[in-house]
Amino acid sequence: MRVDGSRPHGAATGPGGLGGLGGLGGLGGQRGHHGLSQEGGRDRQRGLAARIARSVAATGPATGARTTTGEIVAWLAERRRAHGTRIRRIPFAELDGWSFQEDTGNLVHRSGRFFTVEGMRVHDADRPGAPWEQPVMRQPEVGVLGLLAKEFDGVLHFLAQAKMEPGNRGMLQLSPTVQATRSNYQRVHGGSGVRFLEFFTEPGRARPLTDTLQSEHGEWFLHKSNRNVVVETADEVAEDPAAEPDFRWLTLGQIGELLRLDNVVNMDTRTVLACLPTTAEPRPSRHTDAEVSSWLGAARSRSRLTAEPVRLARVRGWLRDEQAIRRTDDRHFRVVAVAVEADGREVGSWTQPLFEPCAPGVSAFLFRHFDGVPHLLAHARAEAGLPQTVEVGPTVCHTPDGHGDHPAYADVVRAADGARVRYAAVHSEEGGRFLHAESRCLFVSLDGVDDSALPTPLPDHLWITPGQLGALTGRGHQVTVQARTLLAVLNSGAARLS
Amino acid sequence: MRVDGSRPHGAATGPGGLGGLGGLGGLGGQRGHHGLSQEGGRDRQRGLAARIARSVAATGPATGARTTTGEIVAWLAERRRAHGTRIRRIPFAELDGWSFQEDTGNLVHRSGRFFTVEGMRVHDADRPGAPWEQPVMRQPEVGVLGLLAKEFDGVLHFLAQAKMEPGNRGMLQLSPTVQATRSNYQRVHGGSGVRFLEFFTEPGRARPLTDTLQSEHGEWFLHKSNRNVVVETADEVAEDPAAEPDFRWLTLGQIGELLRLDNVVNMDTRTVLACLPTTAEPRPSRHTDAEVSSWLGAARSRSRLTAEPVRLARVRGWLRDEQAIRRTDDRHFRVVAVAVEADGREVGSWTQPLFEPCAPGVSAFLFRHFDGVPHLLAHARAEAGLPQTVEVGPTVCHTPDGHGDHPAYADVVRAADGARVRYAAVHSEEGGRFLHAESRCLFVSLDGVDDSALPTPLPDHLWITPGQLGALTGRGHQVTVQARTLLAVLNSGAARLS
Repeated sequence: MRVDGSRPHGAATGPGGLGGLGGLGGLGGQRGHHGLSQEGGRDRQRGLAARIARSVAATGPATGARTTTGEIVAWLAERRRAHGTRIRRIPFAELDGWSFQEDTGNLVHRSGRFFTVEGMRVHDADRPGAPWEQPVMRQPEVGVLGLLAKEFDGVLHFLAQAKMEPGNRGMLQLSPTVQATRSNYQRVHGGSGVRFLEFFTEPGRARPLTDTLQSEHGEWFLHKSNRNVVVETADEVAEDPAAEPDFRWLTLGQIGELLRLDNVVNMDTRTVLACLPTTAEPRPSRHTDAEVSSWLGAARSRSRLTAEPVRLARVRGWLRDEQAIRRTDDRHFRVVAVAVEADGREVGSWTQPLFEPCAPGVSAFLFRHFDGVPHLLAHARAEAGLPQTVEVGPTVCHTPDGHGDHPAYADVVRAADGARVRYAAVHSEEGGRFLHAESRCLFVSLDGVDDSALPTPLPDHLWITPGQLGALTGRGHQVTVQARTLLAVLNSGAARLS
Repeated sequence: MRVDGSRPHGAATGPGGLGGLGGLGGLGGQRGHHGLSQEGGRDRQRGLAARIARSVAATGPATGARTTTGEIVAWLAERRRAHGTRIRRIPFAELDGWSFQEDTGNLVHRSGRFFTVEGMRVHDADRPGAPWEQPVMRQPEVGVLGLLAKEFDGVLHFLAQAKMEPGNRGMLQLSPTVQATRSNYQRVHGGSGVRFLEFFTEPGRARPLTDTLQSEHGEWFLHKSNRNVVVETADEVAEDPAAEPDFRWLTLGQIGELLRLDNVVNMDTRTVLACLPTTAEPRPSRHTDAEVSSWLGAARSRSRLTAEPVRLARVRGWLRDEQAIRRTDDRHFRVVAVAVEADGREVGSWTQPLFEPCAPGVSAFLFRHFDGVPHLLAHARAEAGLPQTVEVGPTVCHTPDGHGDHPAYADVVRAADGARVRYAAVHSEEGGRFLHAESRCLFVSLDGVDDSALPTPLPDHLWITPGQLGALTGRGHQVTVQARTLLAVLNSGAARLS
């Protein structure tokens, strides 16, 4: 184990881990006068931001990464072959363990685990088409999305997993170290356990760098939350690729390079990366942090959107046949079933339902500079299933399926020419729940554009800095999963706005 | 209007208010190169914390307050006489506009406004007695609890209201400038409007100092949230007591003196005060901010508590007679009805239901110093109706009704002698919803206590600093309303732990 007194975060190292957490829950007297943590410490925060910046700059062995990004790409391809997984659409009747409840029509697993597909009725006095009803996923557990960090030669690396999920385009993508539900966590069903889970669930096992609850898609989930956690260890762990074929240590800069590719870095990795505290020093912004918070609060108290669960059997405007639950006009999404089958020995086979969007989405931030500081045009976005109804989303977040919905600024994004598009890649939403739910993610510059060419500003849009978006994310439940994907693109250096 | 260029927050002043917010929602170009806000700016944050400290130190005219606290007490007594309000218990049948819905048994108002009394079923695999059912209040609107701030002679004052609420002990207490539901806010029912509401709802009208969503009692409300807002104005407003008999400008120090009295400062004022950013400089703490966040996150992912709405008519273990809905063993609380009647001309009369606890509560933080820094023993507390299920509460928060429930540390609080009790006062919970719901609020010192005399530490308790509790509160939805009352006691100088 490497002990380096000059580590900026000043962790006390020892055989059992990073130390300093042993007193969690204790009354302290037993431990005598051990050192205090010196935190919210700004020096410490600056130190962490500097270490993150160093990891972003490390994109290969010459700059401090353990491998080349090319080797990572080759490893992912090799793991895809090794897992040898494929999926097949099946009728609902072929689902194993899943069935429609007789009284409610809800689609549930016989174990009561995983998730259920139920109905949701949405009221919104301000929206045409409301009230409406739709299927929705419910999963009341708080899962853990955990990324394990460790320094190698002074550069922070993150332990990524090559993970198969049936709904991902390409099946296998780069996931965080751990994606676990509480059922895994507590092993109540006698499972074999989740690799490296103990770093995220045992107090004192590793040093947390960030730990917040974050929402997921509020149009498809009713009140879903996951813990987004990054912890740092000094233990010798997963350093032998042969012993841990599905895990590799990557720098942030390498994940950033992979984020420039389509469908390589999975949604769970992106949302965890968005939570990293990257900027210790705030930059001059158009609005104060309190003003940004107040803008979001005002949108929340204005909103008249409410959602209530209803029985799936009674959802109006949707019909169920042998293969799918779909809207009568076949818009938005369908509920379908798949069988997952594997050639390799490393995964089993199973069946499950998935939500399948009818068209790919667009998720884009417009940005421009004010006095040299980049600002993003943020949107206070109401979604029926969000725990607090309104969160900060990208400027534009919609599914252009040719059927009407036409949010503000959508035309500006669509019409942007190449020079204005500073980032564009297609990413998959959570592949364990959604089938080929792809979004085109963009940053589009408005620098130099004449305001008269733009739509009239709306009260639910506001210019904020990336640092302010990061600070909101650090509070938890303030920023949508789509905006967090775009923030991860910035945090990892996949796109630069300057 | 006073224009003072040396104001630490550097607001650009102008005839229409503080300015600098006019571009909210705009694309910016129209406004040319106006100055940027220099925020999350630490200088600014330090400046605000210093201004708040100065307001805490101002307890009378000699230290910068506009009046004496004695005059405020006399004013409250005078307003109580002027309003001349009394309440009378009535049977449900005498409720005007409220009735039990035929199919659900829910208690609702014919307008659909205000709140409803419904049922809640609570599951918790870890708790004896679960699952259980109980009545619960639902109020899906996000209300506004707003406190208007303004400097007089360089000292921040806050515009408090003498407000009658039927459930408050003593009826009339000190409330924030504004307590408004969205129905008031949008005036959809053609009401006369809420005094000073525009400062909290019109973008650019005043400068926000804090603005977050906060939960309320998770044992009595299902997913209730209110905006807690403090905004600062430079306008001449409410400076003539004769013109605004129910409003007075008070310093934080004066509110702190009133918080040492029983049942004077209402719950809404206390929760808003808890949100003020009082400490710019963090102090050495036993655990880092990320560790505190991780402790809370771990408790959230451990929790197996879930709640679902059920029909009030079908709530098991409760019975309804003409006067009350009560548990068959008459524990916990009752649902009752009251008529509010006034001698004075200034309020009307009405009837409404209220929740009435069967015994007073206890809400206490144990604290001790580590290396000279005070720490509070925080509790990660699960309550069925909290939006995120688990929030940080005081060390002990319970109703000692002699019927069993006996939380950790309750004996330590009860046995504390006078010298250890640094603060004790009785405060009312929200008087618009709860009848005589009083809690004894305490800070109890453990300095010098031998650990062997204390209960074995539990994983859901952690030592955190008041600054860390404040930072959690600033994120929104992390700290219970009872812990926020105790934080307000510290923020206003009503108690000092050093």
